Amino acid sequence: MITQSQIKFVRSLHQKKFRDENRQFIAEGPKIIGELLHSELPVVSLFARKEWIEKNQEIAAGEKYSLTEVNEKELSRISNLTNPNQVLAVLNIPEQMNLSDDHLSGTCLALDFISDPGNFGTIIRTADWFGIKTIICSENCVELYNPKVIQATMGSFTRVKVFYSELENLFQTLKGKTKIYGTYTKGVELSKTEKNRNSLIIIGNESKGISPSLEEYIDVKVAIPSQNNSGGNYAESLNASIAAALMCYEFTK
Amino acid sequence: MITQSQIKFVRSLHQKKFRDENRQFIAEGPKIIGELLHSELPVVSLFARKEWIEKNQEIAAGEKYSLTEVNEKELSRISNLTNPNQVLAVLNIPEQMNLSDDHLSGTCLALDFISDPGNFGTIIRTADWFGIKTIICSENCVELYNPKVIQATMGSFTRVKVFYSELENLFQTLKGKTKIYGTYTKGVELSKTEKNRNSLIIIGNESKGISPSLEEYIDVKVAIPSQNNSGGNYAESLNASIAAALMCYEFTK
Repeated sequence: MITQSQIKFVRSLHQKKFRDENRQFIAEGPKIIGELLHSELPVVSLFARKEWIEKNQEIAAGEKYSLTEVNEKELSRISNLTNPNQVLAVLNIPEQMNLSDDHLSGTCLALDFISDPGNFGTIIRTADWFGIKTIICSENCVELYNPKVIQATMGSFTRVKVFYSELENLFQTLKGKTKIYGTYTKGVELSKTEKNRNSLIIIGNESKGISPSLEEYIDVKVAIPSQNNSGGNYAESLNASIAAALMCYEFTK
Repeated sequence: MITQSQIKFVRSLHQKKFRDENRQFIAEGPKIIGELLHSELPVVSLFARKEWIEKNQEIAAGEKYSLTEVNEKELSRISNLTNPNQVLAVLNIPEQMNLSDDHLSGTCLALDFISDPGNFGTIIRTADWFGIKTIICSENCVELYNPKVIQATMGSFTRVKVFYSELENLFQTLKGKTKIYGTYTKGVELSKTEKNRNSLIIIGNESKGISPSLEEYIDVKVAIPSQNNSGGNYAESLNASIAAALMCYEFTK
């Protein structure tokens, strides 16, 4: 049975302050928990409905974490979802690794002040789909362990490596090693862009785009074709996760 | 000054039941309201902060709708946003037009049980970017006038025509006129898909994909390339709005 203090603790992890303090975060739902339990991420405790436990006897019986059966009402008290979904895990936040040249080989993404958790999680999921292993975030990006980010990744956060770094400093060290691309309204048309063996794609903030201070590091400005060029009134911009997906698609073709 | 009964009424429009009953909906923020006031959509009333009114003297002075100045607290009471943004409009829900052959020329989207408002709004915004004029939704798709859908379109709902229709019946009438495409795990690779002059692209539900009952109407199954084909463990699927964007991008190239 779950105790009041456990409920209070798990709920506290909905907030960044308490995630930072306890270095723990939550993830929810059978799909994501299934992936977690097959990953190397350190699960601390599981809270699950009886149905889930019965269906997952083997994984549920792992000895590395505590397992607590909860009823519908208890799950809804600890859940961060509108529709709580069978199982919730508490995990330790792993230490951030050092970013190495290995992480930067092939195609990588750099996120400049992405602030919407759904966008960030979707970008991680999309990167995973296209085999992109590394995402570097500016320090003002939304936090990876925000429950909405974790949910939107659909488990892909267990595979894609996410780093937080001061982007200007990083870009200075990449000169000559990696070609840096950014999406702009005007530039080389996406499908005609020459891709480099090592490519870093910058995705800018949802309303402000790429920071002006990063512009000097960009080797190629890329434009995603739009009907706006044909006159008339069309959407002014794409959602950041959509722009990221179109770039990932073309760069990993 | 805004009255208590106005506050109560605007708040009621956050719920589908009252939108249906009153045939009205809300939209928020300077970007979207700016587009609305230049569109043909019937704005009934505006509630705005002083700063917005001062900056938008000309449009704010329109005689077709009522304008009420609100303070920060009042705006937050009527707003559906976490961070209310200067201005909120109440609009009449327009009558649904009849779907004609004109609407179905070129590239169109059909959404099969899209249930996430953010996804739906983002799909409308992306369609607009790529010049796609028509989206046909199954009757169990999320409602267009849900405030979260409207916000995610960033104003594109004023340009893209959205219809609700029983998809099976519709697809029967399209035989020979329009080629129907759907995204599947296995199929013709997206970049190698032959596009038709009239193409209808089906986007399936977020967790269940395209309904089995629609499969027989699909002329071409399309697969978006993934690292999953190369063995190893990668994301199992793409977010529905991402899949839609990749299809729109290739089909309007």
